[in-house]
Amino acid sequence: MIKIAIAGYGNLGRGVECAIKQNADTELYGVFTRRNPESVKTVAENTAVYSIDEIEKHKDNIDVLIICGGSATDLPIQTPKLAASFNVIDSFDTHAKVPEHFEKVNTAAKAAGKVAIISVGWDPGMFSLNRMYADAILPDGQDYTFWGKGVSQGHSDAIRRIDGVLDARQYTVPVESALAAVREGSNPELTTRQKHTRECFVVAEEGADLARIENEIKTMPNYFADYDTTVHFISEEELKRNHNGIPHGGFVIRCGKTGADGENKHVIEYSLKLDSNPEFTASVLVAYARAACRLNSEGVSGCKTVFDIAPAYLSAKSAEELRAHML
Amino acid sequence: MIKIAIAGYGNLGRGVECAIKQNADTELYGVFTRRNPESVKTVAENTAVYSIDEIEKHKDNIDVLIICGGSATDLPIQTPKLAASFNVIDSFDTHAKVPEHFEKVNTAAKAAGKVAIISVGWDPGMFSLNRMYADAILPDGQDYTFWGKGVSQGHSDAIRRIDGVLDARQYTVPVESALAAVREGSNPELTTRQKHTRECFVVAEEGADLARIENEIKTMPNYFADYDTTVHFISEEELKRNHNGIPHGGFVIRCGKTGADGENKHVIEYSLKLDSNPEFTASVLVAYARAACRLNSEGVSGCKTVFDIAPAYLSAKSAEELRAHML
Repeated sequence: MIKIAIAGYGNLGRGVECAIKQNADTELYGVFTRRNPESVKTVAENTAVYSIDEIEKHKDNIDVLIICGGSATDLPIQTPKLAASFNVIDSFDTHAKVPEHFEKVNTAAKAAGKVAIISVGWDPGMFSLNRMYADAILPDGQDYTFWGKGVSQGHSDAIRRIDGVLDARQYTVPVESALAAVREGSNPELTTRQKHTRECFVVAEEGADLARIENEIKTMPNYFADYDTTVHFISEEELKRNHNGIPHGGFVIRCGKTGADGENKHVIEYSLKLDSNPEFTASVLVAYARAACRLNSEGVSGCKTVFDIAPAYLSAKSAEELRAHML
Repeated sequence: MIKIAIAGYGNLGRGVECAIKQNADTELYGVFTRRNPESVKTVAENTAVYSIDEIEKHKDNIDVLIICGGSATDLPIQTPKLAASFNVIDSFDTHAKVPEHFEKVNTAAKAAGKVAIISVGWDPGMFSLNRMYADAILPDGQDYTFWGKGVSQGHSDAIRRIDGVLDARQYTVPVESALAAVREGSNPELTTRQKHTRECFVVAEEGADLARIENEIKTMPNYFADYDTTVHFISEEELKRNHNGIPHGGFVIRCGKTGADGENKHVIEYSLKLDSNPEFTASVLVAYARAACRLNSEGVSGCKTVFDIAPAYLSAKSAEELRAHML
């Protein structure tokens, strides 16, 4: 059995707890939290909860640690620190800062003889893999990533910070006609506005100036100004009833040409339709936890990304089973 | 530059010749054929063509050999034999005989200190990878593979062997309603007949008994009897004009559940839409040729499948580039 621990217990940590149960070869060692352990309510009643301050004491009992913190401030500190004692997995998703994060984690993991796999999930993660495979197979081509339909936490938070807003949920929606043009293989040039729209469901304070709120949303730089944005004001009850989930998904599409004169067109498409973004991400994290544990037991150390991990390491099935039944 | 040679020059070999040109880090050493080399017309005029009988003499000049023979009789002999002297790639696609083929090739490649990657292409190949990744991520789920719309060479050949048939082209077509049910996440049980239909375009001899031919096709065991099959009799001109390509493609879909009680549903879908089946397969072969060459230069030997190859080995981009731009 692979003993997995969770550091940080929000939606993602909860998802990891559930995912570990679905895998016959993994078991949950426990949850480590910055909060008072007694205040943490886990999915399973018997899940052990410890203070993160005491994690070093548990070092020899844990095969791999899944770090479920946020990319903005938690992971840049936590992953290098914890990689000095544990095999670790994180879902660091600030694409632009990956090289810097990689270097810090690699130094720590190498020194400790541990394996760290960073930026695991679906984007970065499965989407990255599909961009890379498709690019390697069809070098004369172009790839496109579309996100949604799904809830963007960052955009929802940005709306909540507007004066007069009580709560909000923002959906990123891919533009169907853009998807169709890409699938056609016409390699269109698409602007930000042409690829996605943004749909906002907002609960406003009683008597708030709705026109002003709508305008503040639609003109917010970086978040909304470059998009066609729709704003719906709804009641708190409706928000809870109809917008309580955290669905997401998206599409990675590459169109390329082959032949003596590029006369043949090919379309590779990978898509996800997820009822729960954090639970799916958690499921990917657990598969890579298996890989980290196996790689480390083979003597491998250092920082890795999904690009560096041979697919078979993710599977609970043996090499013989994979060849006989999944090839 | 990675020097690649081609053994066997049909549609697949021609595709490999074209694919090598699209990759800046690969070059074609030459084509090896069982035919009289002077009778072989290559895509590029200056491609060197040699007799396969002399391939051993070229051993030290070739980094990796892509074997483009057929799975029925060529590859079971050729791949183990050539793996004793070369890093090799093949597209062995008799799923049931993979374990046996693997063992023979592994023994030869290990003894020679060479890398052999077998069953490379899209199914087996990219479809296998996607079945495996999705199975590892969503263990509580079910996967489905649909093929088409595309030309099945084996089924087209089977029709051509019927008395009174001059030529034929058979398309495998996935049933839209079955695809929709799978994407819904309802995990339907689907019979062979419910998943695909078969559409046949047949050129008959003048005066042939068309009703008899149609009946022989529709009742042919293994090939057509278990499917809803449509037969169209057309002229030779129409066959040449409208059915001259070798398109193919298909879908790998996995639906799975996560959560404390499996309350959240997820759909992972990978699809290919290919104008030219052999040229796309060839493009995959060339990416894995790059991987074989790199792995061997790191001291790796033995037989591998797509499950064993870390994605980064397929890419012409460096690890730093991949992390910075593709993650």
